Amino acid sequence: MTLEPSTTEPPRKSGPAEESPESGRLRQLTHDVIFEADTVAGRGFDIALLALIVVSVIAVMLDSVDWIRARWGRSLVLVEWSITLIFTVEYAVRLWCVRRPWRYALSFFGIVDLLSLIPAYLSLLVEGSQMLMVIRTLRLVRAFRIFKLSRYVTESQALWEALRATSAKITVFVLLVMTFVLILGSAMYLIEGPERGFRNIPLSVYWAIVTMTTVGYGDMAPDTAWGRLVASIAMILGYSIIIVPTGIFSVEIIMAHKQHVSTQVCPNCTREGHDTDAAYCKYCGTRL
Amino acid sequence: MTLEPSTTEPPRKSGPAEESPESGRLRQLTHDVIFEADTVAGRGFDIALLALIVVSVIAVMLDSVDWIRARWGRSLVLVEWSITLIFTVEYAVRLWCVRRPWRYALSFFGIVDLLSLIPAYLSLLVEGSQMLMVIRTLRLVRAFRIFKLSRYVTESQALWEALRATSAKITVFVLLVMTFVLILGSAMYLIEGPERGFRNIPLSVYWAIVTMTTVGYGDMAPDTAWGRLVASIAMILGYSIIIVPTGIFSVEIIMAHKQHVSTQVCPNCTREGHDTDAAYCKYCGTRL
Amino acid sequence: MTLEPSTTEPPRKSGPAEESPESGRLRQLTHDVIFEADTVAGRGFDIALLALIVVSVIAVMLDSVDWIRARWGRSLVLVEWSITLIFTVEYAVRLWCVRRPWRYALSFFGIVDLLSLIPAYLSLLVEGSQMLMVIRTLRLVRAFRIFKLSRYVTESQALWEALRATSAKITVFVLLVMTFVLILGSAMYLIEGPERGFRNIPLSVYWAIVTMTTVGYGDMAPDTAWGRLVASIAMILGYSIIIVPTGIFSVEIIMAHKQHVSTQVCPNCTREGHDTDAAYCKYCGTRL
Amino acid sequence: MTLEPSTTEPPRKSGPAEESPESGRLRQLTHDVIFEADTVAGRGFDIALLALIVVSVIAVMLDSVDWIRARWGRSLVLVEWSITLIFTVEYAVRLWCVRRPWRYALSFFGIVDLLSLIPAYLSLLVEGSQMLMVIRTLRLVRAFRIFKLSRYVTESQALWEALRATSAKITVFVLLVMTFVLILGSAMYLIEGPERGFRNIPLSVYWAIVTMTTVGYGDMAPDTAWGRLVASIAMILGYSIIIVPTGIFSVEIIMAHKQHVSTQVCPNCTREGHDTDAAYCKYCGTRL
Repeated sequence: MTLEPSTTEPPRKSGPAEESPESGRLRQLTHDVIFEADTVAGRGFDIALLALIVVSVIAVMLDSVDWIRARWGRSLVLVEWSITLIFTVEYAVRLWCVRRPWRYALSFFGIVDLLSLIPAYLSLLVEGSQMLMVIRTLRLVRAFRIFKLSRYVTESQALWEALRATSAKITVFVLLVMTFVLILGSAMYLIEGPERGFRNIPLSVYWAIVTMTTVGYGDMAPDTAWGRLVASIAMILGYSIIIVPTGIFSVEIIMAHKQHVSTQVCPNCTREGHDTDAAYCKYCGTRL
Repeated sequence: MTLEPSTTEPPRKSGPAEESPESGRLRQLTHDVIFEADTVAGRGFDIALLALIVVSVIAVMLDSVDWIRARWGRSLVLVEWSITLIFTVEYAVRLWCVRRPWRYALSFFGIVDLLSLIPAYLSLLVEGSQMLMVIRTLRLVRAFRIFKLSRYVTESQALWEALRATSAKITVFVLLVMTFVLILGSAMYLIEGPERGFRNIPLSVYWAIVTMTTVGYGDMAPDTAWGRLVASIAMILGYSIIIVPTGIFSVEIIMAHKQHVSTQVCPNCTREGHDTDAAYCKYCGTRL
Repeated sequence: MTLEPSTTEPPRKSGPAEESPESGRLRQLTHDVIFEADTVAGRGFDIALLALIVVSVIAVMLDSVDWIRARWGRSLVLVEWSITLIFTVEYAVRLWCVRRPWRYALSFFGIVDLLSLIPAYLSLLVEGSQMLMVIRTLRLVRAFRIFKLSRYVTESQALWEALRATSAKITVFVLLVMTFVLILGSAMYLIEGPERGFRNIPLSVYWAIVTMTTVGYGDMAPDTAWGRLVASIAMILGYSIIIVPTGIFSVEIIMAHKQHVSTQVCPNCTREGHDTDAAYCKYCGTRL
Repeated sequence: MTLEPSTTEPPRKSGPAEESPESGRLRQLTHDVIFEADTVAGRGFDIALLALIVVSVIAVMLDSVDWIRARWGRSLVLVEWSITLIFTVEYAVRLWCVRRPWRYALSFFGIVDLLSLIPAYLSLLVEGSQMLMVIRTLRLVRAFRIFKLSRYVTESQALWEALRATSAKITVFVLLVMTFVLILGSAMYLIEGPERGFRNIPLSVYWAIVTMTTVGYGDMAPDTAWGRLVASIAMILGYSIIIVPTGIFSVEIIMAHKQHVSTQVCPNCTREGHDTDAAYCKYCGTRL
């Protein structure tokens, strides 16, 4: 959520000397529409942009299917180029209306916005680079800006905070799992060996990830008794270890919900358990 | 549970002029048996109907197995047509005894009831459409009406409410996962490409779903080092991200069980959100 | 845990007239050793029996491996027959020392004990029935009797109660999943059809179970665009729906833990939150 | 965390007579740097060692990939031998500076440290034993020592304690699952039999593990109607049973967070278990 923090600052109200007040006001207005989501216009812009991104992603997806391309290839190219032009204009306007263009250009969203444009223009020069247009799917993360508009903001913020609060514990857990994955993968390489598909340690570690996450493609599977024993350990470990972060995370959310109860004591009846927003004791009516 | 809300209204007690009081009473009675589950008759009807649906589904399932059809095909056809006739009569009676037939016909259950009839009659005209009789499995959702009868009602209602209360958070989560699936699927299409089975982006997105939900059929699996890296990220993400909705949902049920907040409104300041054990308004100190 | 309730009753202290007091005392003693786990002898018997069961299961397992059978087949047969004889004697003694032999013989453990004997004797008559000796693994459930001895008793009881308390909610959930499985399996049969491996509806329902539980063998996988769409829905549903029972069960255990706090109010200071085992108010020291 | 408890004791401050005070002080200093993590030097040593271990593991992993070995094999050998020498010196110094060398040598970390050295030297004598150098990945568990330095200590300790507190319940659960796995695997061996890939019981049990953990490689899959039924039971059991330990563990962490129970002992009746907010003994009413 803090991915384009200060780039969203509007141009200074007292614009530089070389800019007329009208131009300044126009830039201010454009900025508000594009970067803010509180106004009706800003909200409409965000939704329209998201719709365009979705259409663009669908067009790129369909274009990759042979028989659809053969049939509607021309229409899809038209759609893609129209959207590319709109996105180009949008990118230029974004650069123009922020106070510090470079900060926007180098922010996460700025880079994504640029990256989603390059493949289209590149395809004019290099054959086949059109395929890179799928990078546009990255722009979908803009969808989460939409949540700023609605009641989803509290929800996603609560999630985000719970995730951040548990990050230390989760890091310990991820390191533990990575160690397990490395040790089990290496063990499998020793046991099964290159002649049974476990060609090298990175591949064996990949197998360990496939197994411990319980995905289990089956493209590589143990073929010896000892290999199956190690695989069984990996499976049971992967199957059961997920309970650890689940528990951690659940508790964090519970704690976050609890913090509505203050530790304040009523001066009259000395009872506790008042909500943080309480002004009067709920038991005897005394002012807190 | 609100799938056939106002269609279940009985015909007006004071029936229209063109209907004799006896007929009106009969319709009222039929309505109560078919749509209500509080009386003994209504309860018996619901259970009998559910038994018929289960028999019907089993008959259609067995009929699809070649050797069973070869042996008992005739008996199965008999069973299917008997049930079809009963369902047809039931549908007609339902239409007759509700006050607003169209509202029932267009409700979720009304459409399902009709859809489960059409394939049988269609099979008289079009060869092979008998297969469509599996649509009848949809009628199984009627099973959940049975819960209205028993102690399950509180259980399923608690579940339902917890699901509804978390729907905003779950929506954020699903959108997040969908974005991940699209980005990872597209990345895989770029990396592995059509020549290694990732023929187009929709197919790659399907692979991403198979991987992130940890199903892992293995019909498509990465074959390059970079592909395996992206696949590993997808797996670990899918494996660990499920803790988020689990935590959210657990907390919601806990909160639902606690329900310390009453629906009481302060008579002085008209604000809500008081605890059930509160004797005084926590905002203005007035006695509740 | 209530699998052999009244069968464990000792023979009446005042034995019938035709039994000498010494014999009665011996039966009482034998009964206590075999069925009770509180005494040192009873505990020793249970552990020795469990060890024998484990050895027996390992012997049967090893006997099924071709090269082990070829090498140590004779020793394994010896072990198996020794244990079979011991189990036979044990079964006879059990029958002898309980007051109501038929109730034991027809109890769950009684049937398992008998079933684990039959295949061995049957193998003398029918060739190949030795394979049925794997039924002996069922006797492993006796392991859970051991928990009666130790601190595990409270643990398993708490688990059991939480499971029982949530059984209504879990039943609703299982019915819901079964309905989904039937509907999705039938849909897949319609979409993919017999020519693409979905030969009949029971098989398609099996595929739906494989998919929704995220096992994903890959022996059957969708091959059409619509089939993949339905499969994606099945996967996402199966992947996410597990959060429902997880939440339900977590909450139940929390509730079970909470019940240590009584609703008693101190007669002196009128404060609540006392433990159920508290005799004095923890705030002011008044007798409760 | 208690893997090298008393071996980390420094040499006695009052060194034995045959050791000069300077040598004693040097050993004390070396000990502190290597075994303690509180000082700046100790911290630096731990991080440097971890970096070396990671480099060593990466070198061994890359060395196992054919084309990388063909290209940079010589450099990798150089890196591996440099690190081997450093680890050898480290091992010698560790032995020298602890008071009881044997206790360190036989501790978990001592054995891992030695094991990570042997394969390198063995490769000079026996061809191909270089592959065993992957054992070095085991040294990665030293990474968890690093947590002693940082805020991770509380996190990992909380996790550890929750795991230990739930160990009894988890043991019951694991035994239950193992019993299920054995029974289902044996059943599958009886049903599908050796001719359909379920060659022997250990292999069938391996299949049951693959299925119940929802990994589902697909290298073995049921092929008969009854086999599919048993497989379905195994899948649904494995899919749903994981909610049990998840619930147990979640609750344990919540309890750990609450910790209302102080370690205070009543001065009058010497009983424990008082809440942290208790002013009077809840058993005898004495002021705490």
